[in-house]
Amino acid sequence: MEDWEKLIEKRDLIVSVVGIGRIGLPTALMISNEGFKTYGIDTDLSLVEKVNAGGGDPPITYIIDEPELESLLKKVIINRKLKATTNFRNYTSQSNLIILCIPTAITEQKVPDYSVINEVLKEIGQLKEKLAKKIVIFESTVGPNYVEKIAIPLIEKVSELKINKDFWVASCPERANPGNIIKNLNSIPRIVGASNNYARNIVSYFYKTAFKVNIFEVSNPRTANSVKLIENIFRVVNIAFANEISQLMRKFDIDYMEVLKGAATKYNFLTHYPGPGVGGPCLPSNPYYLIDEGYKVSFTPNLLRVATEVNQSQPFHIIELIFEGLNKINKPIANTKIAILGISYKANVKDVQISSVIPILSELQKNNAILGIYDPYYKEEEILGFKIEKNYEFIKRVYSIIIIHTDHNEFKSQNFKDFLRECKDLKVIVDCHNTYEYEEIPNNIYYIGVGRPMKYINRKNN
Amino acid sequence: MEDWEKLIEKRDLIVSVVGIGRIGLPTALMISNEGFKTYGIDTDLSLVEKVNAGGGDPPITYIIDEPELESLLKKVIINRKLKATTNFRNYTSQSNLIILCIPTAITEQKVPDYSVINEVLKEIGQLKEKLAKKIVIFESTVGPNYVEKIAIPLIEKVSELKINKDFWVASCPERANPGNIIKNLNSIPRIVGASNNYARNIVSYFYKTAFKVNIFEVSNPRTANSVKLIENIFRVVNIAFANEISQLMRKFDIDYMEVLKGAATKYNFLTHYPGPGVGGPCLPSNPYYLIDEGYKVSFTPNLLRVATEVNQSQPFHIIELIFEGLNKINKPIANTKIAILGISYKANVKDVQISSVIPILSELQKNNAILGIYDPYYKEEEILGFKIEKNYEFIKRVYSIIIIHTDHNEFKSQNFKDFLRECKDLKVIVDCHNTYEYEEIPNNIYYIGVGRPMKYINRKNN
Repeated sequence: MEDWEKLIEKRDLIVSVVGIGRIGLPTALMISNEGFKTYGIDTDLSLVEKVNAGGGDPPITYIIDEPELESLLKKVIINRKLKATTNFRNYTSQSNLIILCIPTAITEQKVPDYSVINEVLKEIGQLKEKLAKKIVIFESTVGPNYVEKIAIPLIEKVSELKINKDFWVASCPERANPGNIIKNLNSIPRIVGASNNYARNIVSYFYKTAFKVNIFEVSNPRTANSVKLIENIFRVVNIAFANEISQLMRKFDIDYMEVLKGAATKYNFLTHYPGPGVGGPCLPSNPYYLIDEGYKVSFTPNLLRVATEVNQSQPFHIIELIFEGLNKINKPIANTKIAILGISYKANVKDVQISSVIPILSELQKNNAILGIYDPYYKEEEILGFKIEKNYEFIKRVYSIIIIHTDHNEFKSQNFKDFLRECKDLKVIVDCHNTYEYEEIPNNIYYIGVGRPMKYINRKNN
Repeated sequence: MEDWEKLIEKRDLIVSVVGIGRIGLPTALMISNEGFKTYGIDTDLSLVEKVNAGGGDPPITYIIDEPELESLLKKVIINRKLKATTNFRNYTSQSNLIILCIPTAITEQKVPDYSVINEVLKEIGQLKEKLAKKIVIFESTVGPNYVEKIAIPLIEKVSELKINKDFWVASCPERANPGNIIKNLNSIPRIVGASNNYARNIVSYFYKTAFKVNIFEVSNPRTANSVKLIENIFRVVNIAFANEISQLMRKFDIDYMEVLKGAATKYNFLTHYPGPGVGGPCLPSNPYYLIDEGYKVSFTPNLLRVATEVNQSQPFHIIELIFEGLNKINKPIANTKIAILGISYKANVKDVQISSVIPILSELQKNNAILGIYDPYYKEEEILGFKIEKNYEFIKRVYSIIIIHTDHNEFKSQNFKDFLRECKDLKVIVDCHNTYEYEEIPNNIYYIGVGRPMKYINRKNN
C-alpha cells in the first residue's frame, strides 16, 4: 500500500481508461489533468485520432453537449499527459490501473449483454503475467454479481493468475449524468468496493486524489454495483409513478403539476415529473440488470417490472394526446403535418439512445403522418431514419400541431416563444414536459401538457 | 368575506369538529385553544364524557401516545372553549364551520367504505335551512372525486339547498402523522380547495389563524384530495420498492442497509427503509381510493396495485425469516416458544390498525407456535385475540427466538439491550426494522435483519 501511495502522490501511477465514450473520455481527461499519465483506449480509430489531435471536425460527439471538455482536452494533449490509442495490449500492460468504462447494453429481449465487456476481460486475461500487480476497476454498469461471479473467474481462467494474490479488482461505478458529467465527477462521492481491503484502500485513495471527491467504501463489488443500480432505479420507479398517476389525474380533470406543487409542501415528499417516458444510457436499462439476476434466483421483482413497463408505454400515451389534440381540430393523423421538436432523450444533450421519441416517431409514421423534425443538436443530420430540419422555421409552413418532445433550452427561449406567436396555422401544442406555463402559450391554441387537462387558450385582447 | 374575517379575528366564529378521534380531537383542541368556541361531536358517549371531564381512566386512547394533548385538553375544558357532545343536530346548527374528521376505511375487498361519512352528510343535509351560510370542510381522506361527485350532490339533495348559493364546501385534508400530530398540525402547510373562491378564502384564513401554518391553495376539492393521497402513496410505492429490493439483495448476500447508505450519498436519492409491511390508518388504504376511482374510468393503476401487493406480502417474508432462523437452531415453528415484541403498526404509537403484526401472528398461530407477546403500549391488555405480557421478562423463560416487530424506543434502550444479554436461551433475533447495529447484538446469536444476510454474532472475549 505504501508503494501505491507514493506512486499516487508523485503522480507516477499510470492509468488506462478502456472505452473513451460519454463517461470514459471525461474520466480520462480529469485523471490526466490531475497529472497522471493516462491512456485512453478505444476500438474507434477516428475517435482516437480526434482525441490525439485535441479535437476535430465534426467535433467529438460527447464534447458537443459538454463544451468544458474541449479546453481540458487541448490542455492534456499539449501536456502529453493523455494519449489515445487502439493498442489495448501494449498500453494496458504498462499501466497500474485498468479502468473499464465500456458500455453494457441490454438486448431487445431486455437481457444484459455482457459480450463486449467479456471480450475486454479476455484481453485483460491474455496479458498473463503482465497483469500481475495491477488493479482492474469496473466503472461500467453491471448486475450486482457480475464482477464477482463472472468477471473475476473469467480473468483468472484466461490469465492463470489468482485474484488478491496476483491482481485485484474493484467496482467504482460512475454516477455522472450526461450534461453535467464534469460537475458530477467533481462532486458526487464515489462508491468503492473491491476484491479485498488492500485494493479498496488503493482505489479509494486514487479516486480521492484524481477527482477530489469523498469516497464511500462498501464491503465488496456487489454492494457497490447495487448502489449504482438502486439510485437510478429509484428514479425509474418514481418517474413511473408520476407517469401513471398523471394519466389518471387528467382523466379526472385534475392538473398533476398542481398536485405536485401541493405535495412538495410536505417535508417527506420528493417531486418527480411525468414526461414522454425514460431514455438514455441508464434509466431504461438499469432495472433489467436486477430483474435478470432476480430471475436467476427465482425471484421476480414485480414492482420493477411494472415500473419499466409503465415508462415504456408512456410514448403511446403521448400518441393518445396527439390524437386528442388533432380531434379538436378535426384532423386525422394520416397526411397531417406534425412537427416534432427535440429528439434527444433529455434536455440539452446530444443523445438519442433509447429516446422515447423513437416509438413516437414510429407510431406517427405508421399512421402516415407527414413529419417535420427539429432538434438543435442534430441540425440537418440524418438520424433515426429521418432528416432533421436546420431550424424551426419550417413550422410556419402550415403545421397545425407541434409536439415538444425534449425540453431543450432553445424551446424555452423568448425567441422561440415569440416565433410560436407568428405561426398562424398552429392550433395544437402537445407539451411532453410541461415546458410552458399557460400564460406563455399563444392565443387560440389547444394546449395539452402531460398530466394536465387539455386547455383552450383564449385570452381577450391578445 | 369581510363578515367572516371579522368573525375569525374576533374569535366569534363557532366550529363543529365531527369525529374526535386521532385527528379530530387534536384538531378540536388546537382550534379551541386559539379561542374559538368549538364543539367536538362524536357518537362514542364514553369518549365525549372523558373529553368533557378533561380526561379519564383509562385515559383517552389517542392521548396515550401524544401526552402533550392532556394539558391542552384540561386547559380548553376549564376555559369552556371546548365542549364535546353526541348531539349532532343541535351543535352543528349553531356552528359556522362543520369540519369532518371522520375515518373513511376500506373494506376487506379493498374498496373505500364511505357509508359512515355519507350518513353524516345526510344529517348535515337534514339541517335544511339551518345549513344556510355554513361551510362544510372535509379533512377526512377520500377519493379525489368524492367531494364533488358524491358529497355535494348528496347534501344538496337532502337539504334542498344549492352549493355556492346557500352553503359551501371545502377540502382541507389532514396531513399529520400519528405520534407527531400536534407538531405536524402546527407546521405542515395546509392544502385548501373549495367549491368556489369565496369559500376558499374563508377556509384558508381560518386555518392560517387557528393553526398558524402556511396555506397552499388549489383549484378545487379534487386537487386538494389528490395532494393528500399522492404524498402518502409516494411513501407506499417507495417502501414497496425498499421491501422488494431488500428481499432480492439478501438473496445475493448483500446488506441493503449498506446499499442505502451508499445511495444516500447521491443528491437526488431519498431513503426509504424496508420493514415488515405498512400499517395504520393511511398507507395501507390510501392507494385504494385512487385504484377504486381508476377502475371507474377503466384505468388500472398497475404500479399502485403491485406496490400495495408487495407491502401486503412483506409479513409473509418475515415468516420466511423466522423459518430461516429456527432452521439454524433445528427447531420447527410448531410448539416452539416465539416472542413477539411490538404490535403497533409503527414505533411509539398505540395503534394496531392494519398492523403488519396481524398476518404474522395469524401465520405463527396457524403453525402452532407458542406465542409470547409484549408491547409497552398494550401491557396486560387483551388485543387481537391475545393477552399481552406485562413486561418483557417472560423472554427469559426459555424463549430461543424473538421477533422485534415494532421499533418502539423501549426496544432500543440500554436497559433492553442489557436484558437481552441475560437471556441465556436466546439464539435467534429477527429484527423487522434493523433496529440494531451488529455490535449491539448479544454474542452467539443468529441475527436476521430485514434486507440483511443472516449473521451469526460470534465475538471473541465476549
